[in-house]
Amino acid sequence: MDKIKVGVVGYGTIGKRVADAVMLQEDMELIGITGHRYSYRMLIANEKNIPIYALDGVEDFIKNNVHIAGRIEDMLKKVDIIVDCTPKKIGKENKEKYYKPNKLKAIFQGGEKPDVADCSFVAQCNYDEAVGKDYIRVVSCNTTGLSRTLDAVNKKFGIKEVHATMIRRGADTWDIYHGPINAIVPVLELPSHHGPDVKTVLKDINIFTTAISVSTTLMHMHNVIVECQKEPTVEEALDLFKNTSRVRIVDNASGVRSTAQIIEFARDLGRNRGDMPEIVIWKEGIGVANHHKLLYMQAVHQESDVIPENIDAIRAAMGFKDGKKSIEMTNKSFGIE
Amino acid sequence: MDKIKVGVVGYGTIGKRVADAVMLQEDMELIGITGHRYSYRMLIANEKNIPIYALDGVEDFIKNNVHIAGRIEDMLKKVDIIVDCTPKKIGKENKEKYYKPNKLKAIFQGGEKPDVADCSFVAQCNYDEAVGKDYIRVVSCNTTGLSRTLDAVNKKFGIKEVHATMIRRGADTWDIYHGPINAIVPVLELPSHHGPDVKTVLKDINIFTTAISVSTTLMHMHNVIVECQKEPTVEEALDLFKNTSRVRIVDNASGVRSTAQIIEFARDLGRNRGDMPEIVIWKEGIGVANHHKLLYMQAVHQESDVIPENIDAIRAAMGFKDGKKSIEMTNKSFGIE
Repeated sequence: MDKIKVGVVGYGTIGKRVADAVMLQEDMELIGITGHRYSYRMLIANEKNIPIYALDGVEDFIKNNVHIAGRIEDMLKKVDIIVDCTPKKIGKENKEKYYKPNKLKAIFQGGEKPDVADCSFVAQCNYDEAVGKDYIRVVSCNTTGLSRTLDAVNKKFGIKEVHATMIRRGADTWDIYHGPINAIVPVLELPSHHGPDVKTVLKDINIFTTAISVSTTLMHMHNVIVECQKEPTVEEALDLFKNTSRVRIVDNASGVRSTAQIIEFARDLGRNRGDMPEIVIWKEGIGVANHHKLLYMQAVHQESDVIPENIDAIRAAMGFKDGKKSIEMTNKSFGIE
Repeated sequence: MDKIKVGVVGYGTIGKRVADAVMLQEDMELIGITGHRYSYRMLIANEKNIPIYALDGVEDFIKNNVHIAGRIEDMLKKVDIIVDCTPKKIGKENKEKYYKPNKLKAIFQGGEKPDVADCSFVAQCNYDEAVGKDYIRVVSCNTTGLSRTLDAVNKKFGIKEVHATMIRRGADTWDIYHGPINAIVPVLELPSHHGPDVKTVLKDINIFTTAISVSTTLMHMHNVIVECQKEPTVEEALDLFKNTSRVRIVDNASGVRSTAQIIEFARDLGRNRGDMPEIVIWKEGIGVANHHKLLYMQAVHQESDVIPENIDAIRAAMGFKDGKKSIEMTNKSFGIE
């Protein structure tokens, strides 16, 4: 079988990880990435022998000894599919400017509005819906995290109602331009956009979300309260999460007390960039109240949890029908379960 | 030649990295590490097939399904040398309790006082002094960082006087128990201990240091002012640092604007744990004032810069005479220069 030829447009936090992940897949070939100006990211791409296609001028690259393989138009001619990892709204512009005229399939990120694509996507929730679609939107890191665990809870206990609070990291690790660095910032829209966004994947879930930003860079946290139809027990919920793909249980007893130690754990595991693509649930943070209320606390690594989804979305768009198999292949390449 | 059999006592921030680094050396064999209670670090050691020798009781390990290879006394019988990576003062206790009675050579860390060892050590500054010594003290991360660059400056321009200010990270990345999280804390001892500590390695340097702790976990920074004997130029200093081992130049122009982006750079390079063992100097942060004053700003990755030194210290203690060769071997295994 021919390998799927993938191009990555936008080489930031998500794009550089998607590029690395594509290179790990036996059924895919990374044709290249795009770059719009000289930066250390471009030096890294050169070091990894990833072809760079210029989005704008090339003078800045040449001046700084960055090797360029061509212009974006050259890359578009060589690929079967694009993963667009540009900042929000740019993906939609790129669709009109580049992908549609070139009759190229494309994967978009959660920063785009749902209508950019034919469906929103979390592999273990709705892979089948995405098979053969031209445009697929991988939902945001938070929506991905909520969807993975709520889908499992719904299938096991039946969900009447969810209230989830996102405690969001203020900025990514490299980002010195955003904050807060000393405040707690309530997101003053109710519900926060996460609830409606979960419904683009899990259509019938009754969910209401609120969000708060805090002074950390490491991960988001979700405090989740689910009113279930069947009575859950803590042990059943723990077993359920243990057996849910792309979800990992950690225990406070082993010293994993916070998001800081989760990231340390990922670094110690030798993960690329110290990433933790699994949604992480604290064993001691699972509880049941008033018979039907299941409570749990989960941490979401905003830089990496959507990367496996992007890989599965590529396969789905290209017509690979077996979602379970795709998830297995992707998981194996990441060393996750 | 027989491989050097190494045991690591203390498996925290430094110990776990030393253990990984020993496993990368062709002339060394990691016999095991010690553990004193159940933690995620022990799970990682099990996953990496590193034998764990119990410092205290073993019940806690057994209860939590951590596989134990024996007690510390068993490990001491099998090794040629110990790298002690325990918290300060414990190293000295261990020396009396374990290493001396067992006639074992040992490497200590910079948290110990200089008199714990026969010499203090930074490989590129005084390797020869350490050859064949029974006890060697690898100096602290900050002292290592200052010694690497000041030794180069001294040999090139001659140092009359140094004033360096350490802007120290408040706590390590995993550490949720220490601070500050919202303050700038002057270290109220003058000079700070770093200046005298540099003199344990570079004996004749006239250096005065001050220190301040700030709310970050990523790296330390040093603001260094050197009164030179010969007139330096910015270009000469840049060339000097480019050609100094275990020192790396970065440029603001490529977007490496802060310690945050240095760490992102290390992660992108695929470094184990996202480490940056090199001392990092900003190209745009090198300057000359009043003809003889050389100014530069350097960042020090407190978790990892001393790891190569520990490897070289092992070789020196075991009688390997060629310091330049040892540094080359170590650097190659880390992928640094």
